[in-house]
Order: sequence, then C-alpha cells, then structure tokens
Amino acid sequence: MSEYILPIEILIEQFRKLPGVGRKTAARYAMTVLNMSEETVNGFSDALLSAKRDISFCKVCGNICEGDICDVCNDTDRERVLCIVEDVRSLMSIEKVREYRGRYHVIHGALSPMKGIGPDKLNIAGLPDRIINEEIEEVIIATNPTIEGDATAMYLTRLLTPLGVRVTRPALGIPVGADIEYADELTLSRAIKGRSEIN
Amino acid sequence: MSEYILPIEILIEQFRKLPGVGRKTAARYAMTVLNMSEETVNGFSDALLSAKRDISFCKVCGNICEGDICDVCNDTDRERVLCIVEDVRSLMSIEKVREYRGRYHVIHGALSPMKGIGPDKLNIAGLPDRIINEEIEEVIIATNPTIEGDATAMYLTRLLTPLGVRVTRPALGIPVGADIEYADELTLSRAIKGRSEIN
Repeated sequence: MSEYILPIEILIEQFRKLPGVGRKTAARYAMTVLNMSEETVNGFSDALLSAKRDISFCKVCGNICEGDICDVCNDTDRERVLCIVEDVRSLMSIEKVREYRGRYHVIHGALSPMKGIGPDKLNIAGLPDRIINEEIEEVIIATNPTIEGDATAMYLTRLLTPLGVRVTRPALGIPVGADIEYADELTLSRAIKGRSEIN
Repeated sequence: MSEYILPIEILIEQFRKLPGVGRKTAARYAMTVLNMSEETVNGFSDALLSAKRDISFCKVCGNICEGDICDVCNDTDRERVLCIVEDVRSLMSIEKVREYRGRYHVIHGALSPMKGIGPDKLNIAGLPDRIINEEIEEVIIATNPTIEGDATAMYLTRLLTPLGVRVTRPALGIPVGADIEYADELTLSRAIKGRSEIN
C-alpha cells in the first residue's frame, strides 16, 4: 500500500496514530497539510510540540495541567465526592454541566483483557488511599457505559466498597430530546429498569 | 467553549483545520497526542514540516512530487489520453487499478459557487494548451459524481469540446459486489440508463 511519495507516506503513518484514523482519512489529512500555507504548518507543528512539552498529568487526580496539581484539585471548595472517569474528555464534559461540584479521578482508560489492559495499566493504585485521606463520602463511577467501562466499574466497585464509601453510577436511560423509537434495545431496557415515580 | 488549558486549546484548533474534524474529534486527537511518547510527537511534528518543505505540485499536471515534474509526467510511455481528476487521491486510486495508462491533470477541487470557487481558483487555465501541445486524443473527466463534480465536468466539457478532442466520463452504476437493494435511487437510475447489452 506504499504508493505516495515518501514524505507523504511518513505523514500518513503519523496521522494513522490518531484514534479512529484509517489510511484513507490519514491520506486526506496529509493532502490537506500540503495545501496549507507554510505558516499554518509551522503553527501546527509547534502546537504539537508545545502541548507535549507544557502539559503534564496532575499528580493527585490524573487530570491535565500545566504544573504539578490541576485547577480542580487546587480548588478547596470541592465537595467530598469523587467522580471516577476514564479520560480527561469525560471530566471536561461533566465540568461543563456545572451540576457536579466534587472532585475527580482520571484512570486513563478502561480494563480490557483483549488489549492487555489490566488494573496495573490504569491510574487506580492510589485510589483507595486518596479516598481515605480526603475523607471521600461518595464515589461516582462514571466510566463509559460500554463493555469495558462496565467491567471497570465492577472492578472498582469491588475494590472500593470495602472502604465503607458509598459507590454510585450515573443513571442510564433515554437521552433527553431523543426519540424513544430510535433508542436501542439495551438503552430502553436500562431506562425501564431505572424508571422513577412521577410525583 | 474554551475550557481546556491553553496548550491543548491551541492544538485542538490546529486539528480542526483538517477536513471533517469538529471540536470533539479534535479534542480526542489532542488528548491522544498527550499520551504519545515525546519521540513520537517529535516524529509527528517533523513529518508535518518535511512534507510541506519537500513536496511541491508538478508544474505540468498538478500531481504531488519532490522535484518540478512528477513521476507520471516523466513517464514517456503514457498514452495520449488525459484523465482530469479533482485531487491527488483520485489520481492515486486510478493509478492503483493499473487499467489506465494515460496522463493526468489534477484541478485541485471542484467548482462551487457556494464556497466561492470559480474556474480561476482551479488548475484549469493551462488545460487547453496542454491538450493541444501534447496532442491528447481523449479527455476522461473523472471528477467525483457529486453536484459540484458534475458541474465541473459540465464546465470542462464546454471548455474542451471545441478543441476537437474526444471527451468522456467514467460509467456510473452499481458498485461491483454491492447489493442492488441497498443502491440509492440516483445510482440505480444511472445504472439503468447506462445499461449495456450482454453478448
């Protein structure tokens, strides 16, 4: 499949390292780069280097930050609730809603025997100590509702329940504004199981 | 929507310049970069710069090349047939099939009044001279079968027919191996219109 001239092939290989990017998409990206101005390409290249150089992961929770400790962990007003998420994007989504005022713990992935990802590959080891030291009252396990996310949630529940902390998961159900007709069977089944009384 | 820390926001903006990449995908790409090794990120950054620096567009046909003239144009065995394509990816796809042994002309886009792309924005100006000078016998207009590609084909047909050259388009129809049940109405209608006798 090596048909483009070398500098393009090399760039295509780089783009393929991005999640969900196959060869055709990578080629499309690479061709777009050729049509960019030199200035734009320099900016792109710099942005990659700066992001990698200037950003690290928070030593407490695993969130991204520019120093040692992230903004959320530096915020002393946070409630003693801990929300466990798979990645920083989940954290950002929950923060955006402004409904939640607790802390976070980013485990950077989910358990996956298929991909060889065990608990040791995730940011989990310090979790029990953190829950005890910070006197956390409730842990919300907000891993994604996928097979791997669910398996991770089960693992974490077994790990954390013995600490005497309340362990919860966000409700699963029909998305607001969605059409029931288009909801998949699993979602619908979870929505009915989790139904609540109208007052 | 500026919620990530600055170096990430800058990187997200860069990824959004790629075709079809919205904010969520760009954020996903940016987070992946953070999880890459420093070496990988340096390689990515270098690949961007090298591709832009080392690759130019062929002065004859608009294909990509490392010098002034591309490999196809340097190939003296090419038949006097000229295939006009919208982009280099189309050229690559046609080359891969090894059915076609003619030359190419890459116009780098398609006419689109909506996006303000007129004939002057495309690599079309030198086309009539090229057809005359290279004594081209047939022009295959292989723009994409989209509204914009079809409009471009019509424009090119009107431009080139007066030169006395044979102008053709590739057949439109049901893709080989596809199920007729799943073919869209337009494709099916074109397939029936373009039917041929079984010998």
